[in-house]
Amino acid sequence: MNFLYYCQDDNGKLLQAVREKLGNSHHVFDWLNDQDIPLENIDAAIVWLPPDHFFEGLPNLTHVYALAAGVDHLLKHPGLPPHVNVVRLRDAGMGEQMAEYALLGTLMAQRKMVQISIAQSENQWRHEISADTAISTRVGVLGAGALGSKVAERLALNNYPVTCWSRSPHTLPKPIVSMHGANELDAFLAQSNVLVCLLPLTENTHGILNGELFDKLPTGAFLINPGRGGHLVDNDLIEALDSGKLSGALLDVFHEEPLVSSHPFWNHPKIIVTPHVAAKSVPDKSADQIIDSIRHVERGDLPPGLVNRDRGY
Amino acid sequence: MNFLYYCQDDNGKLLQAVREKLGNSHHVFDWLNDQDIPLENIDAAIVWLPPDHFFEGLPNLTHVYALAAGVDHLLKHPGLPPHVNVVRLRDAGMGEQMAEYALLGTLMAQRKMVQISIAQSENQWRHEISADTAISTRVGVLGAGALGSKVAERLALNNYPVTCWSRSPHTLPKPIVSMHGANELDAFLAQSNVLVCLLPLTENTHGILNGELFDKLPTGAFLINPGRGGHLVDNDLIEALDSGKLSGALLDVFHEEPLVSSHPFWNHPKIIVTPHVAAKSVPDKSADQIIDSIRHVERGDLPPGLVNRDRGY
Repeated sequence: MNFLYYCQDDNGKLLQAVREKLGNSHHVFDWLNDQDIPLENIDAAIVWLPPDHFFEGLPNLTHVYALAAGVDHLLKHPGLPPHVNVVRLRDAGMGEQMAEYALLGTLMAQRKMVQISIAQSENQWRHEISADTAISTRVGVLGAGALGSKVAERLALNNYPVTCWSRSPHTLPKPIVSMHGANELDAFLAQSNVLVCLLPLTENTHGILNGELFDKLPTGAFLINPGRGGHLVDNDLIEALDSGKLSGALLDVFHEEPLVSSHPFWNHPKIIVTPHVAAKSVPDKSADQIIDSIRHVERGDLPPGLVNRDRGY
Repeated sequence: MNFLYYCQDDNGKLLQAVREKLGNSHHVFDWLNDQDIPLENIDAAIVWLPPDHFFEGLPNLTHVYALAAGVDHLLKHPGLPPHVNVVRLRDAGMGEQMAEYALLGTLMAQRKMVQISIAQSENQWRHEISADTAISTRVGVLGAGALGSKVAERLALNNYPVTCWSRSPHTLPKPIVSMHGANELDAFLAQSNVLVCLLPLTENTHGILNGELFDKLPTGAFLINPGRGGHLVDNDLIEALDSGKLSGALLDVFHEEPLVSSHPFWNHPKIIVTPHVAAKSVPDKSADQIIDSIRHVERGDLPPGLVNRDRGY
């Protein structure tokens, strides 16, 4: 089989790992560096943010493997042929990192670090600020996929009561509670002192983190968003923080990145901005997951990570 | 038996718990509120920061139970009779809270939150800041007592390689590594990317967190001090942070508390000041630990927490 590879940010490690693990029976052409690529014989593409004309002249393309767990960018690509199968990574080694990031944010929320940091900025000793207990800090994770489930497991390991909400039912290991569907969303939100968003970005979830949703959380709830900036309505977050509805937010992703220096998030005392560093894909693990999916396709099985293009993930 | 109780900060919960758990065969007199206390018949005292004349006129006093895990204040009390046995709390329910605090600090160190926070204060998007992995973030815990061991266990549960150092040998559950004694201190320090100090404050440990010790840590190490402010040489910390030897510090305790508003720690960009909130004793658990020690004494056994007054803990 012949693969066409495109990744601009790569330092070559991932391409090398894919080539080594696939072996000599497969050829992986590098769109950016190889000459004389036999476009008409390409069977599948492996891509991250390919240019608009990338898919031109590939008559035999059947599969596109995305170098990401989120395929919102790829599904909006103007040249993506309607008939090809899109396959996404499961966690690309990012699950552990997301778990650490969510744990850090949850500890900050439980231990009132935003209030303590504001007091420090005013040279104020506020011994009366009391941490909550872990068992009274209920965490709600929006999303129960490869990343959401890893996050939930780590938080449960550290004594937080955790509930995952997802569109369709998922079974997660005890003591994690699963809820699903629009009917259960309000009840899920009402008990989430900390809300972690790891949903796929789709038409249905764009702007889901808005004022109406914040109003359904307990007063003083804390938001952690390491997924996609498109989920969040920025002004609604600022209003919810300023009114005291929310106590703080840890944000890693934004509508536009880098976050422009004039954006009000930078200087808001209750917002912690991290520069899209919550989790970086691990080349070796990404390669393993792509190749596992390729082997499934070769055997005629449905590959893990096969995207439902109508659903968006 | 007759007990004399002194605690000014108490809201009454601990005294009530001690009285209930000891039962009617014991009498607990409250120094601050009771009248006509039969001082000559007092067998033991239960105290937190008693006044200078507290121990006067107690001819039959044999034991003093400290309402704290650290007895540095009590051992310096000018009226403490030389012959009485001093018994301290083990963790007073503070172990879990200390574990959370140390985990929070370790995650901040591993995830470079001090650098990210400095970048945020300058509206700078620094995507190139890379988190370390947990397994490459080696944590050294100074102290292997009730608090130090709980901290070490929680960090190990979250994938950090952890070593505890203590004056005398301690056996801790795998995978925690134990080191001890002056001979092993330098080797312990050389491998500690994060250093957590939970030593007792004694003549030997006063000022132990100084420039000479910082020089023995790996460059870029991070300090977490939730124990006692007396361990730290404040100016040496500032020098080590400014030179880049240390990357940051999370401090909960200080030489003088509240920390005066003119202290340079408040506005140092690499220091996170928390107002002595890392762990608060839990009245019910404190009462259980005191009473367990009292029962040991009544049976003629050595009580848990018996202090070696020469050693200081």
